[in-house]
Amino acid sequence: MNEITDETAGSEADLARHAMKMAKKKTAREKIMATKTDQKGLIIVNTGKGKGKSTAGFGMIFRHIAHGMPSAVVQFIKGAWETGERDLIEKHFGDLCQFYTLGEGFTWETQDRARDIAMAEKAWEKAKELIRDERNSMVLLDEINIALRYDYIDVAEVVRFLKEEKPHMTHVVLTGRNAKEELIDAADLVTEMELIKHPFRSGIKAQVGVEY
Amino acid sequence: MNEITDETAGSEADLARHAMKMAKKKTAREKIMATKTDQKGLIIVNTGKGKGKSTAGFGMIFRHIAHGMPSAVVQFIKGAWETGERDLIEKHFGDLCQFYTLGEGFTWETQDRARDIAMAEKAWEKAKELIRDERNSMVLLDEINIALRYDYIDVAEVVRFLKEEKPHMTHVVLTGRNAKEELIDAADLVTEMELIKHPFRSGIKAQVGVEY
Repeated sequence: MNEITDETAGSEADLARHAMKMAKKKTAREKIMATKTDQKGLIIVNTGKGKGKSTAGFGMIFRHIAHGMPSAVVQFIKGAWETGERDLIEKHFGDLCQFYTLGEGFTWETQDRARDIAMAEKAWEKAKELIRDERNSMVLLDEINIALRYDYIDVAEVVRFLKEEKPHMTHVVLTGRNAKEELIDAADLVTEMELIKHPFRSGIKAQVGVEY
Repeated sequence: MNEITDETAGSEADLARHAMKMAKKKTAREKIMATKTDQKGLIIVNTGKGKGKSTAGFGMIFRHIAHGMPSAVVQFIKGAWETGERDLIEKHFGDLCQFYTLGEGFTWETQDRARDIAMAEKAWEKAKELIRDERNSMVLLDEINIALRYDYIDVAEVVRFLKEEKPHMTHVVLTGRNAKEELIDAADLVTEMELIKHPFRSGIKAQVGVEY
């Protein structure tokens, strides 16, 4: 009898402790959130060797679509397989999201540096046009970091443009591994997707709906 | 004159070196890809303190939708603001993706552990039902890691279910920070989203289309 009472008392004390801890967390969180009052267009970088850099970028584009806010995507590197998002967006939400695919194949699939540079420059021109257009609330520059890494486009020029010419309220998302330091310095929000475990290592191939 | 010739020669040699490097990369990549022949449903974990865990999960759901493959989402923690994806999916793709929101508020918004546990258990029951249904090619268990972390549901039971009862071809995506070691051990693909820089630190508040 005593044991049961003790157990119940212990459990009630645990519950009370839990409630108090959660109440403290809630108060602390509300206090922090109250200080966050500014809004501005962010420079967002998704980098690292892990998965989800482009996928999270497209996720934010879908959020914009969900809220009826216009956006645009420039794909700097086009993998032949990566057509899922493009088809879906063009079919259902073409009026809300413009989509340009200007890279052709992964860089290691093309062996012509001059052509790669010309294509990257063309993609960057289109990107600037879309960012300057204040109707776009977000512009996703998918895999631009690969073009920057190989110096197909100049990181200093990209940083200058984002700082000096990007409209104040426009979000720009830049994805791809090996983001340059200059870009990270200029960004407001940087996430590194780190690969902890990958099924390729155990012989599993890229699968529809996951990788593309 | 000589200088110009030398420059041109140097540049051509550079281009040739670049082409050779890219050709080697392409061959190496093709060799690796040829060994990846298996297909199976993956246990995918997105964890870490950075952004993009849920967003990348929803991105994979949108890929499934793009390919016309049925999927389902269970949200274990419902933030009042996180309705963008749900509204978009229900409005346009309700026939392809089932959506269940069973958590209520962030855990630190509720101060009733018993109620939290009951809700997490209900969400887990729904998750099992959706995973067992072989029509679903992917099931996203959004923010389940928070329920696991507070031991609202038992990680050993979740791992056992995924290993023993998950249909072979079904992908299950589990998101949320602080993924438990047992879950990481059982997973095929684990990505840690690491926070490098966050605009909250400089007084910028959560913004529509980015955070929600």
